[in-house]
Amino acid sequence: MGVMEAAHPYMPVSMELPGFHPALMSQAFILATYGGASAVVVLIVWLLSGSVAKLRTVDRLLMCWFAFSGLTHIILEGYFVFTPDFFTFTKPHLLAEVWKEYSKADSRYVGRDPTVVVIEGITAVLAGPGCLLAVYAIATKPVYEHTLQLVVSTAQLYGDIVYFATVILKGVEICLPGPVYYWFYYIFMNGIWVVIPLLISFRSWGAINRAFASTKKKSA
Amino acid sequence: MGVMEAAHPYMPVSMELPGFHPALMSQAFILATYGGASAVVVLIVWLLSGSVAKLRTVDRLLMCWFAFSGLTHIILEGYFVFTPDFFTFTKPHLLAEVWKEYSKADSRYVGRDPTVVVIEGITAVLAGPGCLLAVYAIATKPVYEHTLQLVVSTAQLYGDIVYFATVILKGVEICLPGPVYYWFYYIFMNGIWVVIPLLISFRSWGAINRAFASTKKKSA
Repeated sequence: MGVMEAAHPYMPVSMELPGFHPALMSQAFILATYGGASAVVVLIVWLLSGSVAKLRTVDRLLMCWFAFSGLTHIILEGYFVFTPDFFTFTKPHLLAEVWKEYSKADSRYVGRDPTVVVIEGITAVLAGPGCLLAVYAIATKPVYEHTLQLVVSTAQLYGDIVYFATVILKGVEICLPGPVYYWFYYIFMNGIWVVIPLLISFRSWGAINRAFASTKKKSA
Repeated sequence: MGVMEAAHPYMPVSMELPGFHPALMSQAFILATYGGASAVVVLIVWLLSGSVAKLRTVDRLLMCWFAFSGLTHIILEGYFVFTPDFFTFTKPHLLAEVWKEYSKADSRYVGRDPTVVVIEGITAVLAGPGCLLAVYAIATKPVYEHTLQLVVSTAQLYGDIVYFATVILKGVEICLPGPVYYWFYYIFMNGIWVVIPLLISFRSWGAINRAFASTKKKSA
């Protein structure tokens, strides 16, 4: 519109981002803040869960996971879903800067790819609160403790399969070169939500099986 | 490449479909065949399930649903996933004709939209066999009967949310005008896999809750 657009650092170079404003925070600051905040959350949940009677170590670790996962879904991913113009911000805002940075590994974020927005929407609005409810459920052992974990983990897995597989099928370059962007941001940070939900799904599937087995034994 | 391409009937008109060959079977024939084959499947499962002792009517109806759903996933949707060139076929092939016809309601099929291919891939390869296993599980009552139904239904729901929501976000016209394409093919035929999985999820969630409640009561 007559105004020069700033060139953006994302792949593909041809992508148009009207109003793009370059990053205002360093990679080190962003990673340290997200890593530090996550560590604080995990530490708090670990310490608090220590005062709940009868909780085993695996339960306490799962509470830490669901707290970290749920807050990431709601705060980080929720911000992305409801802030389509985060890449135009001219003043430093931590959450906007996180997505400017992460888009270097997956430019579908800054480019507002509909599939990514939908997956993130489901994750932020449904899986996120589901994770926080799971923290509570693991501590208090209601009847839906394992059902909830299984459903939330299945949804996370489904989302991650669509997330990775659409990139392979589209065959478009979305990631800047370099091991940090590809292996750490793209593969590792998303792979976490493949591996851990898969383990939780197996565990909760087994726990439900044992409940039914016990019911059948006692009613036989 | 020098050869004139046949014009295609899909939306948007600008979509390129190299090698497209027009439909070779009528809408009435395709719908009657799919409807008739589905009715035969439902009838067979209904009759066979009548000979299984202790099955309630709702169990028998669910077996019919999972048989119909699983065979649709594996045969129809599986064919789509693994036949990217179905729209170029010059000889009549029922499954290719089904997708030429359905693409009038959702041209992402003939256009091989990556998100649709991924969802259909998960549905055909994972949910389809899961549905057939559910038919067996409802009849034989293993400990995983309700867990399997819940996971399969959650996956179907997730897929359908992504399926519908990406269309809304993209804002691209994919459906021919007319109530049959939009309301019957697009809304109704996909809406089935929203409503029924939602009902099954609630039912199986409740059944698992009762199993845990019974376990806790008996161990108390």
